[in-house]
Amino acid sequence: MKTITSQFIDEIKTSATSIGIDERTEATKGIIDFVATAFASAHNPSIQKLITALIKEHGSGESMIVGYNETLTASDAALVNGYILHYLDYDDVHSDLRGHASSIILPSLLSFCQNKSFQFQHFLDSYIIGIEVAARIGRTIGSNHYESGWHSSSTIGALAATMACAYLLDLDNDTCANALGITITTTSGLRAQFGTDVKPLHIGLAAQKAYNAIMLSQDNTIVGNKDLLPTFYEVYSQHQNVPSALFELNNGQLAIIQPGLWFKLYPCCSANYHAIDATKSLLEKHSITTQNIRKINVIFPPNGDAALTFKHPTNGLEGRFSVEYVIAKLIKNRQLTIHDFSDVPIEQSIATIMLNIERHYDGLITPSENALPTGRFTIVEIILNSQQKYRMRINAPKGSPNAPLNQNELLEKLKQYAPWQARHIEDLKTIKNTEDFKLYIKPGGRK
Amino acid sequence: MKTITSQFIDEIKTSATSIGIDERTEATKGIIDFVATAFASAHNPSIQKLITALIKEHGSGESMIVGYNETLTASDAALVNGYILHYLDYDDVHSDLRGHASSIILPSLLSFCQNKSFQFQHFLDSYIIGIEVAARIGRTIGSNHYESGWHSSSTIGALAATMACAYLLDLDNDTCANALGITITTTSGLRAQFGTDVKPLHIGLAAQKAYNAIMLSQDNTIVGNKDLLPTFYEVYSQHQNVPSALFELNNGQLAIIQPGLWFKLYPCCSANYHAIDATKSLLEKHSITTQNIRKINVIFPPNGDAALTFKHPTNGLEGRFSVEYVIAKLIKNRQLTIHDFSDVPIEQSIATIMLNIERHYDGLITPSENALPTGRFTIVEIILNSQQKYRMRINAPKGSPNAPLNQNELLEKLKQYAPWQARHIEDLKTIKNTEDFKLYIKPGGRK
Repeated sequence: MKTITSQFIDEIKTSATSIGIDERTEATKGIIDFVATAFASAHNPSIQKLITALIKEHGSGESMIVGYNETLTASDAALVNGYILHYLDYDDVHSDLRGHASSIILPSLLSFCQNKSFQFQHFLDSYIIGIEVAARIGRTIGSNHYESGWHSSSTIGALAATMACAYLLDLDNDTCANALGITITTTSGLRAQFGTDVKPLHIGLAAQKAYNAIMLSQDNTIVGNKDLLPTFYEVYSQHQNVPSALFELNNGQLAIIQPGLWFKLYPCCSANYHAIDATKSLLEKHSITTQNIRKINVIFPPNGDAALTFKHPTNGLEGRFSVEYVIAKLIKNRQLTIHDFSDVPIEQSIATIMLNIERHYDGLITPSENALPTGRFTIVEIILNSQQKYRMRINAPKGSPNAPLNQNELLEKLKQYAPWQARHIEDLKTIKNTEDFKLYIKPGGRK
Repeated sequence: MKTITSQFIDEIKTSATSIGIDERTEATKGIIDFVATAFASAHNPSIQKLITALIKEHGSGESMIVGYNETLTASDAALVNGYILHYLDYDDVHSDLRGHASSIILPSLLSFCQNKSFQFQHFLDSYIIGIEVAARIGRTIGSNHYESGWHSSSTIGALAATMACAYLLDLDNDTCANALGITITTTSGLRAQFGTDVKPLHIGLAAQKAYNAIMLSQDNTIVGNKDLLPTFYEVYSQHQNVPSALFELNNGQLAIIQPGLWFKLYPCCSANYHAIDATKSLLEKHSITTQNIRKINVIFPPNGDAALTFKHPTNGLEGRFSVEYVIAKLIKNRQLTIHDFSDVPIEQSIATIMLNIERHYDGLITPSENALPTGRFTIVEIILNSQQKYRMRINAPKGSPNAPLNQNELLEKLKQYAPWQARHIEDLKTIKNTEDFKLYIKPGGRK
């Protein structure tokens, strides 16, 4: 009889037959966002420091790092590319997972493309498979997993990336099950590290674990327990059995479509996004200035601002997790840029605006059916000195799957950080293999 | 105010002042057993396969592997040395931890001795510190940790090794706390992998995690949460607070002395050891042969044989976890050797003896105060065709801290696998630094 893990691998392989043009179009958007997000972190001294330390330890391998000239061993490249992708918290989100999956899946896939070229469509399909695994486990593991302290992107993401790589390499069921068993017994990452550079390190380590688990499973280098999926549910979320929903498609559609990826327009916590959209909309419609504001109320559902831990941030890094900060910055500058979220002290004028912003909670307001995440909304209410009151409610912010970016809006993000890639974006649709794709991750693009 | 983690680091550093000649003598025994155990795994094709795979991935570094000629990067050497040490389940045990600590601590320490020499006494002291940390966390984490599925050697061992390396390198409190935070957020290892080669892999990975956590903490390469010890207790064992006993010495003595290390005389599960001693003793005293035995009863306290999962093993590897197998082998051959526990099918004559062996459980027998592990005993009862009945009870087997090996008995183990090292064992007491110690881990010893 087949084990649970073996059944799941078969099921996921079967689900690949549902991949069509729509799924690949969405995956291509994910790739564009991946390139934009990675290049947004180019020339970062902290990332450079990690690269230097790893070269000192393990030497310069031959594997590319997105946006950097150095090369690393394949396993270290998976680590650094994951670290880069999540460094600014600017990478895409999948709400089923309650976190980030692309920034783990894509670096581990890339590490297998260094010495071997794959059809680009097969690479895209492997990515779609990874998202599917992340979403299914995310949907079925239960809130207990995240709430008991696990960084779900890191834990579940490593499993998703393992399956994506196994699909890329066309591993047999047995080898894939062995690799999943190694990933599961090595998966980790605690939420207590949020707000530090260990958070993006988790993402890199998860990509590296997937790479290593596959590497150790090839040629039966290390043979372990090939049915560890039930243990993952048991130990990491106190499930007695693997939920049967793990074996089902979401509403009959693959997770890359339903609900789809959430692309970020600003390098800050997505829990700020509703308030950002509301504030931008009010500023566009009404004559609001720093001088004529008396007070700003921000209304959430109870606990809707749990991730926004800084009411009084002292620098841009803390500002990533502060609704007061993003609103004040918008009021003063009418825009948010990557520089607003860097490690510089907050200027006095912004601190002054923040003093007039107050958080409120209202459990009586019914969330919209369209809300994303489910049950969430944010209302921004600006009261002028004249007593004039303006109010805006956002249920699903721009970038989320329920208010998705169109191709042009996504390209705007790419243009900011990777202009060569943005100019050659049409070619991306016609490339044949992963060798061609490597041009898109080289600093400066084509030579 | 100092954090819990920072207090613990201070406390452990203070406990180092209790290290004296007795502690160092015990630690030296641990080193002798480490060398013997590692060399017992030399020329193993499975280990060779892992070494080859890692060289292919990350190149040949400069770090030594005990008993092998190849060298690896320091981080991979920590992994492989850990793997080697636990490959045969022949490495020492610390009952406070419910597992193995030396085989994680020593490989990670060694990886830091490749480009730098340390005073050998300081190396010993760092090892003693590692054992102290493993034992204190082991004593206070609660049985829930192991029982909910964690491989405690792997999880706790990584923390112990991190602290040992921090002591070796004389890191400041802050850097040590950062490294512990990285180790805690990466620690893992599930008991569901027991009985496979992933079990020794856990040990290697734990040593590697400790090495990497320190490496990433030096020069502030990655700065994270520096008070993660409370989260470790919370997430990995559902503790609400760190138990105050973590800050106390065991009966006023360091754990290397009280209870001390348990050295293994046979490469099999230590739960077999009581029965092995009982059987050997009966065979020595009485005229017992394969031909004149009618039946053998083995009596445990209820659940005392939980680790001995094979009643009908088919090969020597499974035989490691079979009381029937070790008794049958002893009756036939009067001794147990390393070859008895390798991957070869069990011969018919042994299978025939095993058929006459029966397990029984008796909850009414009072365990001895001297029992090790606490509450354990095994009685072997041999009934001859003549109706003559011989019976022997063992509470604390030979090798355990309550029936410790003397120096000569330990040297017997070393002689079997590392004759050069055994011949030069007296010199080990006089070596000055870790450069000199490296001779003891070279294949063949001194050139």
